[in-house]
Amino acid sequence: MQAATTTSGACQGYSQAERFNATRRLSEALVASLSDADATIQSMPDASPAKWHLAHTTWFFETFLLRDHLPGYARFDERWPFLFNSYYEAEGARHARAARGLLSRPSLDEILDWRRHVDQAMQALLDRPDVSALVELGIHHEQQHQELLLTDIKHALWCNPLGPAFADPIPVAPTERDAPDWYEHPGGIARIGHDGAGFAFDNEGPSHRVLLEPFALAGGLVSNRDWAAFIADGGYRTASLWLSDGWAWVNAEGVSAPMYWRGDEAFTLSGWLARDPDAPVTHISYYEADAFASWAGMRLPTEFEWEAIGQSHDASGGQQLDVGASVNPVPSNALFGGTWQWTRSAYLPYPRFRPANGAVGEYNGKFMSGQFVLRGASCATARGHSRSSYRNFFYPHQRWQFTGLRLAKDV
Amino acid sequence: MQAATTTSGACQGYSQAERFNATRRLSEALVASLSDADATIQSMPDASPAKWHLAHTTWFFETFLLRDHLPGYARFDERWPFLFNSYYEAEGARHARAARGLLSRPSLDEILDWRRHVDQAMQALLDRPDVSALVELGIHHEQQHQELLLTDIKHALWCNPLGPAFADPIPVAPTERDAPDWYEHPGGIARIGHDGAGFAFDNEGPSHRVLLEPFALAGGLVSNRDWAAFIADGGYRTASLWLSDGWAWVNAEGVSAPMYWRGDEAFTLSGWLARDPDAPVTHISYYEADAFASWAGMRLPTEFEWEAIGQSHDASGGQQLDVGASVNPVPSNALFGGTWQWTRSAYLPYPRFRPANGAVGEYNGKFMSGQFVLRGASCATARGHSRSSYRNFFYPHQRWQFTGLRLAKDV
Amino acid sequence: MQAATTTSGACQGYSQAERFNATRRLSEALVASLSDADATIQSMPDASPAKWHLAHTTWFFETFLLRDHLPGYARFDERWPFLFNSYYEAEGARHARAARGLLSRPSLDEILDWRRHVDQAMQALLDRPDVSALVELGIHHEQQHQELLLTDIKHALWCNPLGPAFADPIPVAPTERDAPDWYEHPGGIARIGHDGAGFAFDNEGPSHRVLLEPFALAGGLVSNRDWAAFIADGGYRTASLWLSDGWAWVNAEGVSAPMYWRGDEAFTLSGWLARDPDAPVTHISYYEADAFASWAGMRLPTEFEWEAIGQSHDASGGQQLDVGASVNPVPSNALFGGTWQWTRSAYLPYPRFRPANGAVGEYNGKFMSGQFVLRGASCATARGHSRSSYRNFFYPHQRWQFTGLRLAKDV
Amino acid sequence: MQAATTTSGACQGYSQAERFNATRRLSEALVASLSDADATIQSMPDASPAKWHLAHTTWFFETFLLRDHLPGYARFDERWPFLFNSYYEAEGARHARAARGLLSRPSLDEILDWRRHVDQAMQALLDRPDVSALVELGIHHEQQHQELLLTDIKHALWCNPLGPAFADPIPVAPTERDAPDWYEHPGGIARIGHDGAGFAFDNEGPSHRVLLEPFALAGGLVSNRDWAAFIADGGYRTASLWLSDGWAWVNAEGVSAPMYWRGDEAFTLSGWLARDPDAPVTHISYYEADAFASWAGMRLPTEFEWEAIGQSHDASGGQQLDVGASVNPVPSNALFGGTWQWTRSAYLPYPRFRPANGAVGEYNGKFMSGQFVLRGASCATARGHSRSSYRNFFYPHQRWQFTGLRLAKDV
Repeated sequence: MQAATTTSGACQGYSQAERFNATRRLSEALVASLSDADATIQSMPDASPAKWHLAHTTWFFETFLLRDHLPGYARFDERWPFLFNSYYEAEGARHARAARGLLSRPSLDEILDWRRHVDQAMQALLDRPDVSALVELGIHHEQQHQELLLTDIKHALWCNPLGPAFADPIPVAPTERDAPDWYEHPGGIARIGHDGAGFAFDNEGPSHRVLLEPFALAGGLVSNRDWAAFIADGGYRTASLWLSDGWAWVNAEGVSAPMYWRGDEAFTLSGWLARDPDAPVTHISYYEADAFASWAGMRLPTEFEWEAIGQSHDASGGQQLDVGASVNPVPSNALFGGTWQWTRSAYLPYPRFRPANGAVGEYNGKFMSGQFVLRGASCATARGHSRSSYRNFFYPHQRWQFTGLRLAKDV
Repeated sequence: MQAATTTSGACQGYSQAERFNATRRLSEALVASLSDADATIQSMPDASPAKWHLAHTTWFFETFLLRDHLPGYARFDERWPFLFNSYYEAEGARHARAARGLLSRPSLDEILDWRRHVDQAMQALLDRPDVSALVELGIHHEQQHQELLLTDIKHALWCNPLGPAFADPIPVAPTERDAPDWYEHPGGIARIGHDGAGFAFDNEGPSHRVLLEPFALAGGLVSNRDWAAFIADGGYRTASLWLSDGWAWVNAEGVSAPMYWRGDEAFTLSGWLARDPDAPVTHISYYEADAFASWAGMRLPTEFEWEAIGQSHDASGGQQLDVGASVNPVPSNALFGGTWQWTRSAYLPYPRFRPANGAVGEYNGKFMSGQFVLRGASCATARGHSRSSYRNFFYPHQRWQFTGLRLAKDV
Repeated sequence: MQAATTTSGACQGYSQAERFNATRRLSEALVASLSDADATIQSMPDASPAKWHLAHTTWFFETFLLRDHLPGYARFDERWPFLFNSYYEAEGARHARAARGLLSRPSLDEILDWRRHVDQAMQALLDRPDVSALVELGIHHEQQHQELLLTDIKHALWCNPLGPAFADPIPVAPTERDAPDWYEHPGGIARIGHDGAGFAFDNEGPSHRVLLEPFALAGGLVSNRDWAAFIADGGYRTASLWLSDGWAWVNAEGVSAPMYWRGDEAFTLSGWLARDPDAPVTHISYYEADAFASWAGMRLPTEFEWEAIGQSHDASGGQQLDVGASVNPVPSNALFGGTWQWTRSAYLPYPRFRPANGAVGEYNGKFMSGQFVLRGASCATARGHSRSSYRNFFYPHQRWQFTGLRLAKDV
Repeated sequence: MQAATTTSGACQGYSQAERFNATRRLSEALVASLSDADATIQSMPDASPAKWHLAHTTWFFETFLLRDHLPGYARFDERWPFLFNSYYEAEGARHARAARGLLSRPSLDEILDWRRHVDQAMQALLDRPDVSALVELGIHHEQQHQELLLTDIKHALWCNPLGPAFADPIPVAPTERDAPDWYEHPGGIARIGHDGAGFAFDNEGPSHRVLLEPFALAGGLVSNRDWAAFIADGGYRTASLWLSDGWAWVNAEGVSAPMYWRGDEAFTLSGWLARDPDAPVTHISYYEADAFASWAGMRLPTEFEWEAIGQSHDASGGQQLDVGASVNPVPSNALFGGTWQWTRSAYLPYPRFRPANGAVGEYNGKFMSGQFVLRGASCATARGHSRSSYRNFFYPHQRWQFTGLRLAKDV
């Protein structure tokens, strides 16, 4: 089943065991081209080493599944949980986040050995009803880290003046699909949030009603060509287009273009390449997305508006991650895929939301201040991972993810 | 009309001229006990010198009313706009915010002279229909700065190891009013936002519909006694109660109590005084308010829930600012007054919100990221200034304002 | 004795009482033109408010003389030592240095009252042999703070965009004295350090021998004209002229001229004035002095070379502080006065140096790392305060003092 | 000549070619136990990756020897000088020092290939009179980086909670040599500095005379046992023992013991090991050395005093680096070796010192501000590298080198 080893593995119609194993294999496929040193470095506190992602996801299964539910399981190394816990306060003290890049040991090979050890032990727990939800959480957790692994290694390689490539580019067939200029919505009461069928993160519920005003959502993502027009029109130098915090950020950081732009090129996982004007713009902050929308005389959608449209679209469509390889957004008419889409909604709890008990309750709820919601999926999102109710979230200044935007307007 | 000189001046039934003059007199009454040096110092970048508040509000009238609408008016001093513009990009460069405390010149007396000069010139514009809305904005703008002046000088005096008093405490009669334990609301579609009668800031509109789930809002504010129980129960040391950003803030700043607490005392505008256990807790951050609500097994209200209840309450009631004097929250059953109330709503634009054109369009809209909404009014809010649709906003870590909380719960 | 109230007061031939009283009066004369607010502000952590200098010098007499040696003396205010101790660890905890500018209370008038109270009590101790050395230390300590008061208020007023003047300029007669182009010295063993007659700080001793190579010291100070040539020749852009730390400093701070330069003007205690090309350059860091000397193909003198020449010069000559007024360096041929002169000597203990016991032992010795020695005296040094053995010292990046340079060369 | 491949290579009696090749081999021996990831990480801006040291020393030979003196030589990779220039302004822009740890490419293997390429090309230049001095400089330059490589990788491994070992400890025979309690010196005129025979760095000259007072230098280094007594006596909590900058450093950094101490253990290149009380204390800052000397009622020597004694000692004796292996100070009576010894002398130019022309002139002179001189040699100094005139230098707060102290006193 060679293909499965490099597919995203969360597709419907497969058993949990198949999906678990496929997801684990994809993570390893993602680092196939990396040296031990590549997998060790950390280029900023927001990012983590590739090796750390491989280890942390393994720690998740070892801790919440094997330790808690497999009698007699002995940890592979008692000293490693301290190194690879991310932010679970209930799991105790941990290595400082900003110092993850100093861990030359354990080596990449040792981490891969640990993964094999854990995977073998995990087979006993797969498709077992009592832990099925936790395993599912672990699979989707690892998919999130697959995307972070790609964006983090992209940032690290960009910091190297040699601009090394992560992997050769993969030709992606353009998505030929009819899409209207605008998806119109008449407003009214919409049902928002996950309704309970299939896996979802706790922050996607409870399902509830939201009252919408009439609006329209653009049929396509804002492109590099659109963005170049914004720059040419002085977008980054016009204070009146910007949120106050955004204007301070532009000036403090000297921002004048999306991250990774240099002349007519952009840094990609395949090194410095010419930009495609028709491809969606990516690596922009919320501040930039909001300023662009102001410049265009429109606005960003709310996450509820987006979801109301998204419910009738195929969440597995568009450009998403299928195999371990270099990814970069290409032109597409799909609602999902390519880049995540900033919304103007702050990341806040839905009515009657309650986090789960225990350490896994720290998964989402505690991040509900200061961040904005993104919807859709990106070229680095494992296909099958996202949903119309899926809520991604980042701080408004962050832009090392594959972030982009789709405009909205009142009608 | 001595009384008017120290009343808040925005009450209904008075002419605009009466309200303008009363507001201007109240600002001056607030600094009556301050020396030139007291009025000059700045204790942190978030705060401004008292003198600066007197000057900035005067700059507002001189710029947007006298310069723009009174032919032949000559600025009192051409060099001062650079010093006293706050954040209006459209009005050009300005003195660095963090360096406001270095301006020993112009002196407090010179600023008071400027105020008299501007007030005299302003008389020709009061109650004139074409500029009436701008004058009204200026009055409410000055009232906002009255509250900031009080909270800023409180912070500055607190930084002095001598703990000097701003003024003697004023006895405040307890508000005797029946209030239920909980205000219950059945949910449904509520109309939110200012409906157009009387003054409101642009961020309070447009009026629109919001769908609410059934909820209840507490009849009283959380008290110092309640807060002491939270502390005694380890509230500040229990990670699971806190938002992630909040927990980082608690640890980075070493927070273990509300601002201004010391043993059984609290610093007030009358110096260090014993705390009244029945008075509402104040000077807490959003993070603290949220953690307290989690500890209490409840939550903060949304701003929409708060407004749905607030629409049937007297916005001029409760403990609010009437005269230039020391203020400190006292026990009360009123919905408004005492302390501002944190909501769990991020400060975001209402549907179809558009900022005004020109410099005054920078008043509110550009701050719509990263902050949370507070509702109600505090003991330092000029009576008549607030409304049920009023949206105050601060960053989640800020707590030098008179901030408190009122719990909510699902029903 | 009106004249004495504004003379520097350390001249020979006067009694200690006369010198004490004259020194105290001069300090007060220096603040005669300052408002309470002017005297309160602090523009950077290195500087202190004028009021603080008046208070700290008074604290010195109250603590080390009145408290320790005048039976029955009661402190003027028991809470003030915490505010006005500078750095004496042996005297306990103290107010944070960077927060001195927040002390609007006590007011300038209260500090002046305190000074009168202390001065009156001090009369009983003046010219008393057992405390004579401590009183002398207090007088010279206060003279040091007079110079700091002037340089600190200069910096604070410069931070104000209005550029207010401290006082009107005082015409200074040019010093007409013959000076050679170079003072030559044949080298050999020189005796360095204070020999015991008259007051000196502990760091000026013990007197000891130093072996000098033949050298020459320039007859004049480097002038503004000389410095303009350095700038015109790209001095601030030529890495090879600079010490490594200096080059980092130039680039981090964006330095391209001496402090207080703006076009053809310089900020002075009388506001912005045209620069005199013949006046000595001032407000330069050690890094700049060293780079200039490299550019000129010469070097800075060692402190021992300077002293070997200085021993035959009049330490009370040249432009030094006589009255409370605006000061600014003027052309002069004197060895002393005008500006302090950077030497290439690090500030280190002389052979067999031992600090005194007790708190006053903290006066000098504990600063002997990281700083460089300056010799001579400046226009802001109380005349009579300096000596040929006098060792002033600052960090190499500091330049808000009246610092300049005199070149040296090997012969 | 296997032995030579792991000896320090600067011994007398060998040809330049032999010494060049031995030095190059030793550097490679030092990284024999490191993975690519180990050799890539950088744990603080003061430190550099092991790989970087290997590359930078190679860049030195490629640039100043092969490029400048071997006609037809083509750089191995034109892009690498940007990465591996350290601080030579004359050689143009370069990669930011603090970002050296992000260079996962080129890999360790690629750097080793580069070394072979350069070494091969270098053979044509060895023992050639016209470039002999430059080659000699390159050899000694590489020896300095060998010591930095060891101290930098020690720091990096210490940052890893696993505390991995660099290599197994090597048994070192205790140095049995008679040493007096004190080396006494009668004072008088001493000749200081390198006299011209054999290699020396430019900062060791010109040779000149210095007048010394009578003094004594301790026969042994301060030991771990001595230091424990200092700690037990409250040394780190007694302000009066410390320089002002040192006391600020102790409090800001929370320092309470030498670097790498933990209970009765210390981190070494062989991981966490029990401390030998008789071994010299190491990894202390100048501030700590100075405070210890004050506590002991003595002082640090000047660099001139140290050299006056050192001239009659064997600079190749004591514990110094012979082979690529784990090193850690052991008890010894030798004057050289074990740990570098802080002196109380600031690092300043000797009389008539002039840096060389061109880029190599940046080697030493530009660092002559803010640092203190250390004398002797450490267990990580390649044997044969140091001399009695050798001047090592670091900032007073730095302590990741093998730094220690030897007391002095006046007699």
